[in-house]
This record gives sequence, structure tokens and C-alpha cells, in this order.
Amino acid sequence: MTQEELFKKLIAHSKEYGFVFPSSEIYDGLSAVYDYGQNGVELKNNIRRYWWEAMTRLNENIVGIDAAIFMHPQTWVASGHVGAFNDPLIDNKDSKKRYRADVLIEEWMEKQRGKIEKEVEKARKRFGEKFDEALFRQTNPRIQSIAEKINAVNSRMVEALEQNNLAEIKKIIEDCEIVCPISGTKNWTDVRQFNLMFETKLGSVSDDASTIYLRPETAQGIFVNYINVQKTGRMKIPFGIAQVGKAFRNEIVARQFIFRMREFEQMEMQFFVRPGEEMKWYEFWMEKRMRWHRAMGFGDEKYRYHKHEKLAHYANAASDIEFEFPFGFKEVEGIHSRTDFDLGNHQKHSGKKLQYFDPELNKSYIPYVIETSIGLDRTFLLVLSAAYAEEKIAKEDGSTDERVVLRIPAPLAPVKLAVFPLVKKDGLPEMARKIMDDLKYDFACQYEEKDTIGKRYRRHDAIGTPFCITVDHQTLEDETVTIRYRDTMEQERVPASRLREIMADKVSLSNMLRQI
Amino acid sequence: MTQEELFKKLIAHSKEYGFVFPSSEIYDGLSAVYDYGQNGVELKNNIRRYWWEAMTRLNENIVGIDAAIFMHPQTWVASGHVGAFNDPLIDNKDSKKRYRADVLIEEWMEKQRGKIEKEVEKARKRFGEKFDEALFRQTNPRIQSIAEKINAVNSRMVEALEQNNLAEIKKIIEDCEIVCPISGTKNWTDVRQFNLMFETKLGSVSDDASTIYLRPETAQGIFVNYINVQKTGRMKIPFGIAQVGKAFRNEIVARQFIFRMREFEQMEMQFFVRPGEEMKWYEFWMEKRMRWHRAMGFGDEKYRYHKHEKLAHYANAASDIEFEFPFGFKEVEGIHSRTDFDLGNHQKHSGKKLQYFDPELNKSYIPYVIETSIGLDRTFLLVLSAAYAEEKIAKEDGSTDERVVLRIPAPLAPVKLAVFPLVKKDGLPEMARKIMDDLKYDFACQYEEKDTIGKRYRRHDAIGTPFCITVDHQTLEDETVTIRYRDTMEQERVPASRLREIMADKVSLSNMLRQI
Repeated sequence: MTQEELFKKLIAHSKEYGFVFPSSEIYDGLSAVYDYGQNGVELKNNIRRYWWEAMTRLNENIVGIDAAIFMHPQTWVASGHVGAFNDPLIDNKDSKKRYRADVLIEEWMEKQRGKIEKEVEKARKRFGEKFDEALFRQTNPRIQSIAEKINAVNSRMVEALEQNNLAEIKKIIEDCEIVCPISGTKNWTDVRQFNLMFETKLGSVSDDASTIYLRPETAQGIFVNYINVQKTGRMKIPFGIAQVGKAFRNEIVARQFIFRMREFEQMEMQFFVRPGEEMKWYEFWMEKRMRWHRAMGFGDEKYRYHKHEKLAHYANAASDIEFEFPFGFKEVEGIHSRTDFDLGNHQKHSGKKLQYFDPELNKSYIPYVIETSIGLDRTFLLVLSAAYAEEKIAKEDGSTDERVVLRIPAPLAPVKLAVFPLVKKDGLPEMARKIMDDLKYDFACQYEEKDTIGKRYRRHDAIGTPFCITVDHQTLEDETVTIRYRDTMEQERVPASRLREIMADKVSLSNMLRQI
Repeated sequence: MTQEELFKKLIAHSKEYGFVFPSSEIYDGLSAVYDYGQNGVELKNNIRRYWWEAMTRLNENIVGIDAAIFMHPQTWVASGHVGAFNDPLIDNKDSKKRYRADVLIEEWMEKQRGKIEKEVEKARKRFGEKFDEALFRQTNPRIQSIAEKINAVNSRMVEALEQNNLAEIKKIIEDCEIVCPISGTKNWTDVRQFNLMFETKLGSVSDDASTIYLRPETAQGIFVNYINVQKTGRMKIPFGIAQVGKAFRNEIVARQFIFRMREFEQMEMQFFVRPGEEMKWYEFWMEKRMRWHRAMGFGDEKYRYHKHEKLAHYANAASDIEFEFPFGFKEVEGIHSRTDFDLGNHQKHSGKKLQYFDPELNKSYIPYVIETSIGLDRTFLLVLSAAYAEEKIAKEDGSTDERVVLRIPAPLAPVKLAVFPLVKKDGLPEMARKIMDDLKYDFACQYEEKDTIGKRYRRHDAIGTPFCITVDHQTLEDETVTIRYRDTMEQERVPASRLREIMADKVSLSNMLRQI
């Protein structure tokens, strides 16, 4: 199965088993927006809680907040988003379609790279076993010429984007003779900047209504509340503020399922430190966040760091934690050293003093900030991708069967325990419900009585339920049940009274937290 | 202390102790939007979880979802919000101020009622003990005349609002000679309808960008997902879908702190039933929801039902659960029998079949719906209002002290356990941290070493921490600690090893759920 096939299956599985639905699907969906179904919402809540407790409970000096999505519009002037949170767009006059200009250029470069690969493949066929690929790549004149062209275009683009030189970006498109994929023509408009923030009007339709924005990141909600939290919470530097919440970006090119959406949920923590100590804490959080990921148990080799060479205007160091999604290693979390850029600008724009008096140093300063920023939806996709497995199973009669299983860490699984009466009579349903009624206050349980036990196991494998228990006639006699483990498919006969203890240990979020 | 004073104190207390801050306060706030601080977010999360688990864990046939805030715009055409989710507004041409026309009229009626009360007071003074108030009210010609005027205006207004007769509403304002509170003039514009939904544009700035809305209620997110959840979750009627999420209304008159905000969070459950059985389930949920409220333990007398006489266009029965806030009995939750209005309209507008095949009846139908809809922010305010108490305490030396205590039910309290070393030396801080490190994975703990123990108790009373433990020199010898209970202020010496067990029982959310 190719990674592309895997990804398609994952999307289909997500819908079929109530994890993710296209938004407003009965109206044929809304582009790049998704809804979480009955199992998805539980998984999402569990991941959110895992992050929240790792931040606020394991760290004495980190507290949470929950700022509104609506913020004073000056916030986004101070943060730089009103001025510079833009994508360069270009329209084709014939097809009337709009594109991100930099993406058009990148796709052109990709196509050129494809030409190189084609040359290499042709030569490989011609020369057979004697083919020295590296040498060929270095010496073939046609390849050399294409590679030089790509490099030249890339340098021009990077510089043009940096200098916000829109005319130059258009000139690159013209020079490369890029055509519209729809109309096939080169009839382009000028390149214009398009702000990614969603706007709306607060107040009524009259002149006094003010334009506000849907926040494009949750970080600023922390910065504008920093002084209130520090004072009322009597926080001492270093300390952190954590927040989970929705953010919105009017992406022109949104893609890859829930990886890049127009409405998404971020889990961010801003850690306030002494100026000059930021690199120590940057390293600290790089390491600590990786441990959080690894404690989910999907395998350390699935993660890597990616250091940013080109830094955002507010940062003096930045790294991503990348995960190997079916579509390659991609960013799931960013750790950024944001300096005093945000607090400094808010102090300037608001006129409010945002300095911290450090009693040990006996002086005041604007704290420096280390940010850890992780996408909740991306982490959800990470868990699904890593957990999804198709397996062949040997059956008793010698034939083989197949199953799809989600190996979700038990503390994150949507349903912890499924309870099945073997048959729908003889008092077994009542007995099953009795057992469940005792456990349901503490664990997410599900009762199922339809179909064979085997089919019920498959359904719960497919949503990642770690424990299935079956109530049969023997249960009526000695109060023992069969417990069946998702990962090993092993079954064990245990007293019903021991279920709580067997499960508590394995589904406990605190045990997972202890591993960080 | 009057109720008004109490409310003011509550608002001040909320800010001082990190529960609720005005949004973007460094920029002087954003009208009718608030942020939750470090203690507020924990209380809010705990209330949300209490509702979520009461819905999804205690009811086998209720599952959750998490739909996006952005939905297909046709959703709001089908639901009726595009056509009819309006407030009648009027502008004063001199002050340029805008008002809700019906609120202007209501305030005028309130003023007239004030005149009646003045007459009554005057008469009471004149007649002294002999004064028969009821008789006076019934017979005094001036009072009679004012009361008649009020009734007439009220009838006209109710009818005009029902018929959406904007000209008549303006005529009432003119007939009553209502003046603008700012300019003092009667120079009014016509009355216009103003839609309460926030609009924004999805896609880029070109013509193909479509207008979408920020959802004004979460209910529709459930309705458009109903068929996906029913099918993939194999749900059988009756069943419910629960959701918690943000909703947005561009209220012209937003007030009373977090009671009515422009951005707010709803906890809604839609319960799908057989047509004809809706009244049974309406009664069922009225009763069940009241039990949820009562299990918080604030006193049954603080709640009452309020039956709607005038029903919304989609309902055939509706009641509120009202709570006695400092500003009077007000709606905190609504239970509505919504018939098949929503699903029927979505079927019509989407062209997708939204019928359910009932195997027992052997026929298909559009289910009827019972909705329970509760404001999370309002419930937060409910808990704060009910929990807030100012108390006089007898001190050992015979004098009295005062404390402010939040009697928040322990499972909902932001911090469960505060750990204090008696002094900052002799190894007591280390011992205190050791005890806390063992408990922090399971309970929200806070460590505090500054100020006297008495002051530390006060601070934790003020945020509602149910347990404070003090580590002293004796702890080093025999590993016992002092546990001090928030509500009784009693202290008890117990082995540190017993803390987990003492607390687990009292802070357990599942124990609270068992009481519903």
C-alpha cells in the first residue's frame, strides 16, 4: 500500500467510523472545514486534555487562560498581522481563477525537477547496470541547465517575497511562461497582497461599527492578558501561560484533509523569561515537547526536529517538531524564541506598562518569550495516522481474516471499554448493563448486543477501543467475564470485580503524564 | 449588602482573583467580550466536563460531536436565521446613537411604572398607618390612567413585533414622545431590521468569495450532522447528540457582565424522538436537567421553571430553567420541543433525505427533536454567584476577622489542593513539594510558601480551594500533615499517605454524576 493510498483510506475510515465528517456535508461541504463526529470529538477532547494537564499540572509555574476569539483590533496592528499577514495572489483573466503567486512558481519549479528525473530515468534505461547516477547528474548539460534555471528562479522568488516586491513576482511568472492550469493562457493580472485574517463588523451597521478580526493565532490572547495573569496569579519569572482555542486563516491553498484548515484549534504556551536566558529555555522546551510526543508511544523514529534557517521577524530562534505523516515529514509543532517583540509592541501601542520587576535582579524589563505552538487538529491526524493498521489474522479453521485496528494509546481512545452480552437473552443483557453501570461513571463505556462477537470486536478495533468484555452464561454462575485486548487480541477470563483495577492502570492519563 | 452591591463585588472579585478579565483590557476592552483568567479557565473546563460526562457517559444513547463554527451559508437560510434573526433598530439623528426600538419602548413603560410607585409612596406618607395600598392602586384615577396607557402601549408593541410592523413600532415611539437619552430630542430615523449574525467572507477578495456567518447557535451543527452520526454510530431512536462550542451574536444591548456576551459558549443536546412522543421526552428532559443543576448543591429554592407562553416559530413547547442571579431570576437553560422544523427544512433545502427508518414501526419519518440548551458562561456566573460568600470569623483573641470564600462544589473547584510549608526552611519546602509531586498527576495542586498560613488560607478561600494542607516540623518526624477544610475551616492532623483517599472521594466528578 502506498502512502497515498494509506492517506485516502484514513480519510475514508475517519468518515465511516464517525471521526471526521466534511463540514455541512448535506450542503456538499464547505471548503477546508471539517466537523468531528462522535468518536472524533472524544479523541480530540482526550488529546486536548493530555496537552493541558502536561502543561498546567506538571509545571507549577504554568497556568492556563481562555481568551475570546474576538479581540480589540489594535491587537493585530501591534502584532503586525494587519500590516504583514499576507499572501501574494494573482488572477488569470481568462479562467477568472485566483492563485497564490508563490505556489504557482513553486509548482513550476517542481515541474522542472520532474524533467530532470525523466532525463535520469532515460539514461538509467540506456546504460543499464553501468549507470553512475551521481556522475550523470553532475555532468549532463541538459540537467545542468535546468538546475541552474531552478536555482535562479528560486533565489529571485525568495528575495522578492522578502522585499515584498510584487512586480518582481509577476515578472518571474512571466519569465517562466507559467500558464493557468485551467485556461492554459498567460493572461495574468498584477500580483496583489491578500490578508489572511477573516474580518467582521462588531456593533450595528452604522458608521460606528468597528472592523474586528477572527484571531489568526491564539498567542496574542496570551500576550494581552499577560500582565493581568502575572499580577493576579502572583507569577514569578520564569512562568508560562497556556491556552487552547480556535484560530482562523483565510488560506487560499488549504489542503491535506484536516492538516491545513481555515478554522483550526491551537494549543499554545508562552513562557516568559529573563532577557538573555531565552536560549536556555528554548532548548529546554524543544526537549520537553519532544518527550510529550514520545510518551504517546508511536516510535521515536517518527519524529525529527527541523531548524528554521530563515526566521520570522519576531524570532531569534525557531524549530519545528516534524512527524512522518503519510504525505511525508511535516510540522506538527513549533518552538519559537519570540524575543520581546510582542510584549514590546503591545506596550508601545497600548501605552500600558508591560514590564516585569525582577526582585532578584532588582530591575524591570520586558520579558522574553519562548513559545510552544501545536495544532490540535494536526495532532489528531498524527494519532490517527500512527494508529491505523491493517492486519491479517489467522483464523481457527486455518484461513485468514483481515482487520483494521486503531492502535490509539488507551488513555486517548474514544471508548475505553465495550461490553457485550454473548446473546440477547437469558439475562445476559441485564448482567452486561449492570457491570457497565458500575464502570461508566469513571470510564467511557459502550454497550453492544448486535451481531456476532467477532463482528463486534472488529467494530471496536476500528475505533480503537482497548478493552472488550463479553458476558456469557458462566458470568451468571461465577461473575467472571472474558476480557479481550485490542492490540494482542488475547482473551482472558477474569472476575468482573477486577475490571476496574485492570483498566484503571492502563487507561489512566496520569500514568501517561508520568512518562513525560 | 444589596443584590446590586453583591453583583459589583462579584465582578471585582472575578478580576482580582483571575477568574474573568475584560477582553483585551490593555486596549481598554472590547464591548461585551470577556476573557477567562487562570482560575476561570479551570472552573469553566470543569463545568464543561460535568455537563459533557452527564450527557455522554450517563446516557448510553447520547453521543457528542464537535462541528466547526463555519458552516455552509445555506444552513442559516434553512434554519430561518438569514430571514428572521433580527432586532428592530432606530437611530436618533441628532446624537447619531442607535437603539433597539423595543428596548426604548420597554424603558418608557418602566418609567411610567415608576410614576405609579411615586404616587403610592406619596399617599403612604400622607395616610400613614391607615393606608390601604391595594385599594389605593385600584381606585386612584391618576394611577388608573397611567396603567391603562402602559397596557395599551404594551399590546401595540407585542402585536407590532409579531407582525414585524416596523412603521407601527416607530409610531409607538412617536406617540409616547420618547426622547433620545443623549440628545433629548425626538428626531428619529425609521425603524430598521438588523440581523444579529456576524458575517465574514470565505475565500479571497474576488467575486467568488462567499459570505458566511459565525454560527449564532450550535444547534444547527448537530442537525446538519444528524444523518452522518445516526448512520456511522448506528444510533436507534430515541437518541441524542451533544455539543459544546462557541456561538456569536451581534447584540446591540449586551450587558450584565458575562450573562449576555457577543461571543459565548453553548452546551446543547438535541434528542431525536418519534413524532407524537415528544411531550413525554420534553417532560423527561425538564426533570433530568433540573437534577443536573441540583446536584451542584446550591439549594433547590434557587431554581424555578418558566414556561413560555409565546412560542418560537419552530417550537410546540418550551420552558426555561431559571436561577436566582444577583439581578433576579433569569434563564440559564432552555428545554424546547422543536418538532421536525429544523430537520424538515434542511431536507427541503439540501435535497438530502433526512428520514429515519424505524424498524419497530416499519416506517420512515423525520424525527421530532427535544433540545436542552444551556449557556456555559451563564452557568459559570451561576456557580460564582451561588458560591460567593462574605463571612465573619471569630479569632482566637476574641476579635473578629472577615473572609471571602467561594463555596464551589469541590469537583468543580479550579484548584483542589493547596500545599503550604509552614516556613521556608528546615527542609519543609522540599517535603511539601514531595507530597505534591505524588498528587499532582491526579489533582490540580498549588504550592505556596509566601506569607503567613492565615493569609494563604484567605487566598485559597477566595478562589474556592476545598483543601489546604500544611507541612510543619512534625511532618518531618511522623509524616503527618494538617488538612484544613474550606467550608468548615476545621483542621485535622492526618498521615500524608491518606491525603489521596480523603480527597479522591470528595473531588470526584463521578460521585457528583451519581447524584443526578
